[in-house]
Amino acid sequence: MSAPPPDATRIEGFAAVIPAGGVGSRLWPLSRADRPKFLLDLLGQGTTLLQETVSRLAALTDQVMVVTGAAHAPAVASQLPHLSADDVIAEPSPRDSMAAIALAAAVLEHRHGPLVMGSFAADHVIGKPQALRDAVRVAVRVALTGKIVTIGISPTYASDAFGYIETGDVLDGPARHVVAFTEKPDAATAQRMVDSGRYVWNAGMFVMRTDVLLGHLERLQPTIAAGVRELAAAWDSPSREQTLARVWPTLTRIAIDHAIAEPVAAAGGVAVVPADLDWHDVGDFDSLAEVLVARADGITVVNRDAPSAQVDARGVVIVGGDRPVVVVGVDGAVVVDTPDALLVTTRQKAQLVKNAANALDQARM
Amino acid sequence: MSAPPPDATRIEGFAAVIPAGGVGSRLWPLSRADRPKFLLDLLGQGTTLLQETVSRLAALTDQVMVVTGAAHAPAVASQLPHLSADDVIAEPSPRDSMAAIALAAAVLEHRHGPLVMGSFAADHVIGKPQALRDAVRVAVRVALTGKIVTIGISPTYASDAFGYIETGDVLDGPARHVVAFTEKPDAATAQRMVDSGRYVWNAGMFVMRTDVLLGHLERLQPTIAAGVRELAAAWDSPSREQTLARVWPTLTRIAIDHAIAEPVAAAGGVAVVPADLDWHDVGDFDSLAEVLVARADGITVVNRDAPSAQVDARGVVIVGGDRPVVVVGVDGAVVVDTPDALLVTTRQKAQLVKNAANALDQARM
Repeated sequence: MSAPPPDATRIEGFAAVIPAGGVGSRLWPLSRADRPKFLLDLLGQGTTLLQETVSRLAALTDQVMVVTGAAHAPAVASQLPHLSADDVIAEPSPRDSMAAIALAAAVLEHRHGPLVMGSFAADHVIGKPQALRDAVRVAVRVALTGKIVTIGISPTYASDAFGYIETGDVLDGPARHVVAFTEKPDAATAQRMVDSGRYVWNAGMFVMRTDVLLGHLERLQPTIAAGVRELAAAWDSPSREQTLARVWPTLTRIAIDHAIAEPVAAAGGVAVVPADLDWHDVGDFDSLAEVLVARADGITVVNRDAPSAQVDARGVVIVGGDRPVVVVGVDGAVVVDTPDALLVTTRQKAQLVKNAANALDQARM
Repeated sequence: MSAPPPDATRIEGFAAVIPAGGVGSRLWPLSRADRPKFLLDLLGQGTTLLQETVSRLAALTDQVMVVTGAAHAPAVASQLPHLSADDVIAEPSPRDSMAAIALAAAVLEHRHGPLVMGSFAADHVIGKPQALRDAVRVAVRVALTGKIVTIGISPTYASDAFGYIETGDVLDGPARHVVAFTEKPDAATAQRMVDSGRYVWNAGMFVMRTDVLLGHLERLQPTIAAGVRELAAAWDSPSREQTLARVWPTLTRIAIDHAIAEPVAAAGGVAVVPADLDWHDVGDFDSLAEVLVARADGITVVNRDAPSAQVDARGVVIVGGDRPVVVVGVDGAVVVDTPDALLVTTRQKAQLVKNAANALDQARM
């Protein structure tokens, strides 16, 4: 396997893996357990976040694999008609990101031999897809040397909502050694990190050789390594379901950050490619409004044509609905009008929405 | 005509007149130009404000007359099936309260000779109807002496939303002379008025002999007096419509407060019966919520059965709708969910809602 020329359109020997999980509960009632965030056309542009994720990677590779919950596999296949059934991996139950990504790595390697895979969340928004593809090219080059490579987001403000990656010495072009991954900081710590210029946001994007990943796993998470090897051997055979039923429930529940990124970084095995991607996780209605452009009247609307007006209020966000909406005197109000549920909050309180569905369940009792 | 015995169920020679006008624009989108406040079951009790108004007066008299806009006359008749067609006076166009009340007085007197009439708004809430009836009995007794009599509401707080009536010497039992009517005061003035113990709220209820009212009008508003006399003579004849078309547009637009109450009070001709009626004008969603009882979870719901919840929020009001509603982090939020429009405001800002329909009309353009 040799490094691709940097100006190639496709990257030979590269596969994109898209773990499509997570409800996005702070986006209730748009998102539901049976209608998770990645299946939504959150920006009202006619394509879902999953479709956009696949679309921006399709220029790099024909090999795109989606890993999702069994309940969502039909919707994923329906949204991605060009994907073959072999490229949708259905998990019988959620076992966190390490099992999902390791299974994809093992299946890819079993089918094709070792290659470089990139793992990209299905529900993020990237305003500069070409910058992502440029960063992936660099990441693949570094990954071929045996590093676990992450693409880190150059911070645009001192967010306390993301984990940060501390960068070290220059490795290759824009790529740098990773000193450490850090948890979400408090606001003051976040400000110091951003001011230092040495930290980037952890957006959960990893590029690595499948053999390197599985090798780390054999050492650090042997149960997962053995399990996904066994699953991969059975995957394209009649015994897939039987093996899944037996092996899947035994896999350790752990995130790739804790299983691989943190311990391998501590041993000097992780690199980062900082990038300016206009990246947004769009985790709640406030960050959704940040991604969108407000109308001339100051209202940000998502997925609606009906008239809306704000009276004595600023920065209002109105999502969905086919009825006129008026907001009087609630600055930053967020109104989400869906056929079967209505949410009212403010941009400032939007992160509390994850408790809304629970509160509603209690109200029903 | 003699004073009725105070313990009689009916008051002989007494007619109730109910001017049913005003949209109640601060209750948009419940209230609309074609669905004004008085036609609404605002408290969710199965009867409309108009029906409640008629019901609480029906114990005093068989003679109930409703004066309303021509557009609303069919709905009024439909809500009050026991009323004869003769007892619904349809105004071709709104010409303020004096023309409406004077026309009713003239028609009643033309049909029955002079009697005592009481005028009561169609869209107020009165929690103590028996106290109202007791006050009306006293007012009728005083009105028979030739006074214009108003029923004043004993203030329960220093509201700056109502006009006040300054009371003077005792006249007859609880009835007192009126010194003056005052406009809505500022908050500090309202506090001084309430602290003095000499002021009551002006709820726009007037009890008076038709001949006394029409006599004052001949002197103070001769155009109205002559116009309604002519209309009354033609009312129960084939020339009603023709006379209405000719005379009605000539009637002076003026409120009864300015036309009669203020000038007659200045001349010592007005009395007031203070009363504790648990009276509410329910002008906006904040005052509506005050009238209602919150559920155990702190949410006040109106006209809905669907589940609702508040998260990190207090004192939420949810009106209408058959969908689940969740409010996150907006204290005192008011959510009005109707099939064709949605309003979001707070109890504190509820008085600004009157601008909402206008804002929406502009947003449509």
